[in-house]
Amino acid sequence: MSFDRLIDGIKRTNNPTVAGLDPKLDFIPGYIKDEAYGKYGKTLEGAAEALYVFNEGLIDALCDIVPAVKPQAAYYEMYGWQGVRALKRTIDYAKSKGMFVITDGKRNDIGTTMEAYAKAHLGITDIEGESAEAFGADALTVNGYLGTDGIKPVINVCKEYDKGMFVLVKTSNPSSGELQDRILDDTLTIYRTMGNMCEKWGEELMGKSGYSGVGAVVGATYPEQLGELRKALPHTFFLVPGYGAQGGGAKDVAPAFDKDGLGAIINSSRGIMCAWKKEEGLDPKEYAQAARREALRMRDDIISALK
Amino acid sequence: MSFDRLIDGIKRTNNPTVAGLDPKLDFIPGYIKDEAYGKYGKTLEGAAEALYVFNEGLIDALCDIVPAVKPQAAYYEMYGWQGVRALKRTIDYAKSKGMFVITDGKRNDIGTTMEAYAKAHLGITDIEGESAEAFGADALTVNGYLGTDGIKPVINVCKEYDKGMFVLVKTSNPSSGELQDRILDDTLTIYRTMGNMCEKWGEELMGKSGYSGVGAVVGATYPEQLGELRKALPHTFFLVPGYGAQGGGAKDVAPAFDKDGLGAIINSSRGIMCAWKKEEGLDPKEYAQAARREALRMRDDIISALK
Repeated sequence: MSFDRLIDGIKRTNNPTVAGLDPKLDFIPGYIKDEAYGKYGKTLEGAAEALYVFNEGLIDALCDIVPAVKPQAAYYEMYGWQGVRALKRTIDYAKSKGMFVITDGKRNDIGTTMEAYAKAHLGITDIEGESAEAFGADALTVNGYLGTDGIKPVINVCKEYDKGMFVLVKTSNPSSGELQDRILDDTLTIYRTMGNMCEKWGEELMGKSGYSGVGAVVGATYPEQLGELRKALPHTFFLVPGYGAQGGGAKDVAPAFDKDGLGAIINSSRGIMCAWKKEEGLDPKEYAQAARREALRMRDDIISALK
Repeated sequence: MSFDRLIDGIKRTNNPTVAGLDPKLDFIPGYIKDEAYGKYGKTLEGAAEALYVFNEGLIDALCDIVPAVKPQAAYYEMYGWQGVRALKRTIDYAKSKGMFVITDGKRNDIGTTMEAYAKAHLGITDIEGESAEAFGADALTVNGYLGTDGIKPVINVCKEYDKGMFVLVKTSNPSSGELQDRILDDTLTIYRTMGNMCEKWGEELMGKSGYSGVGAVVGATYPEQLGELRKALPHTFFLVPGYGAQGGGAKDVAPAFDKDGLGAIINSSRGIMCAWKKEEGLDPKEYAQAARREALRMRDDIISALK
């Protein structure tokens, strides 16, 4: 019902980072794709198999040094239900290796529909007396535009199954300010208002760490707002995208952390997944080792900026 | 690249309504579930099979009198990838019967990730030279909290494949005002600001009907705002949830329409899906005929309120 399990993983690995698993076909070494296409053809099923095999290698190489993975649902849905099955297999495998899994789905709806999303991604589905786990991630990203009606059902599922959520507050993209930076009637920005709502929603999911199970997505590309929100939202754990490929550096993400070096987890997707493409002369079969080297570099980069 | 195809369907059937396909197991007659469980057990696969068979019967009974269906992604994801496969089968079947399919997924993200969602639900997925349709709906609901970066990739896919989107503007739920009704720095509410963004985004997707391919979700439960938005957003087609179960009536939805009785489509989910439970003494095998009767009643109710 909080992010205590995630925080335990961060302490164990001394690494506040999460590896994004957003596997485009371009990112996957040819030998993996050839084998998958050989079995299933250049089909949705073939692509989904390549995605999964690629992820499996990354998870094996990262699971002792990175506490969490964040699969991005869009890249699996793009390959149909076959891709969505690869998402489920990825979640299962990462969990079997002790990793905390954040499904980045930015889901949002109201009432029983939002409850269905929460059960799908975090909870257990009841089939008239029989139980099944549809996806079974540890946390889900959600969009709070619909207000409390869209968050409360997730809180209930988090409470029941010891899971968490990250609400979009201040996203990392260039146009995030079009709405999120605008000033509301009470003189706060929308993102700050959404952040305050996270603190309030989180009261029901407080952990022993002092952080609740209602986290916030706050982009690395806006370090000033990161610092503002860290001070304003002492019980809200941050998921920080935008490090690396989107331009954020270790100094930019430092304000996301509290005085104990906790309170945030930094995402890197392309940096880790595509590390093998940047090492000249590397055998593509070494892609996972290259990912591991990049993850270690990123860890050291961020830890040193926190000192 | 617009809603012209949807509008053609509305004119053909003289019916501005869409049947929501949000099939909870509770809504499905026992004989359908028994047969599915007999084949696959009380498993995700068994549940997904029941969902699909139920939908197939509804689509057969509605396709000549209702122009569109709106499957809600959450109720399929709740049954894992097996449920998501049932979503794909439902979309395929509805399209084969000439219906316009709106996937209610409220997807949102930025850049290439949003492009992946758009390709997944509306476009074509490329697998290194081979093409496959992942889900293939005609329109997708999206959440605009991330601004233009989250909408532009959908516009591009809509342009390429003649599809449309509905952006959440003023949702039907009780807490929608927590954020959406708040006044921004320029004295407009957030929902109105989001609506204005829809008009602007839609300029690239204008149809011969005068409506663009960027629609808006505006709840039937707030008729005053419906009327305000209809006047303010002359090129934005409305998807209106909240009729029936959520409390909106025909008089409440009337302000969503323009002087020609066009410009909006009204959703009913539970009212149509569960009509069979309300007719006393009805054989559950007649569920689809009961749905048809309710759809005709709803059509007449709305059409008469527009006169």
